[in-house]
Amino acid sequence: MEKVNIEEKLSLFSEHWSPKILGELNGQHVKIAKFLGEFTWHKHDHEDEMFYVINGNLKIEFRDKTVELSAGEFLIVTKGTEHKPVAEKEVSVMLFEPATTLNTGNVENELTKKNLESL
Amino acid sequence: MEKVNIEEKLSLFSEHWSPKILGELNGQHVKIAKFLGEFTWHKHDHEDEMFYVINGNLKIEFRDKTVELSAGEFLIVTKGTEHKPVAEKEVSVMLFEPATTLNTGNVENELTKKNLESL
Repeated sequence: MEKVNIEEKLSLFSEHWSPKILGELNGQHVKIAKFLGEFTWHKHDHEDEMFYVINGNLKIEFRDKTVELSAGEFLIVTKGTEHKPVAEKEVSVMLFEPATTLNTGNVENELTKKNLESL
Repeated sequence: MEKVNIEEKLSLFSEHWSPKILGELNGQHVKIAKFLGEFTWHKHDHEDEMFYVINGNLKIEFRDKTVELSAGEFLIVTKGTEHKPVAEKEVSVMLFEPATTLNTGNVENELTKKNLESL
């Protein structure tokens, strides 16, 4: 068991929309990612997903509202809910979700990442 | 779905060793707690537990080593591993663990908290 420093791990990559695995517990993954721009509308039929903002500001758009998150804030997106993350400037996030979760959920496109790197 | 601001939630209580529930996803709880002093040695036979430090410094003692965590660092304590959190000064932590997890694990004493408050 080794500790993990989030900022140190964030310094190891620069690509956007490409989550990295930092740890696993109880079948859940702890991931970090950098977002910039607009992601794709998608949902996860069987998995709740948590976005915790480390640096910057993140908008999560829903069909009926938008939630704006700053550093130190999190949102749990419940399973089955369509959402679209939007970052006007680069944002760093920590994600908690089942190890089975695909980043684009029910959608497969050029943003889909299937084999995530562990840092 | 409402966002959660960690510092705002931390401002709502001052007691130590009394985790508060902030959210639930996939059968896991997101909790925050303030620690000060030495906790009890314990283990969780069936649950991995994640400690993420928000403010301050936290030592987690194991039978064969001690891990020191600062703000922005986390440690996943794997199931079955005896550990004892120690905070020389007050520390604020975010915890991720199954909803079934008892704070003192296999031990029941005056530090055990069975009905956690949700904030």
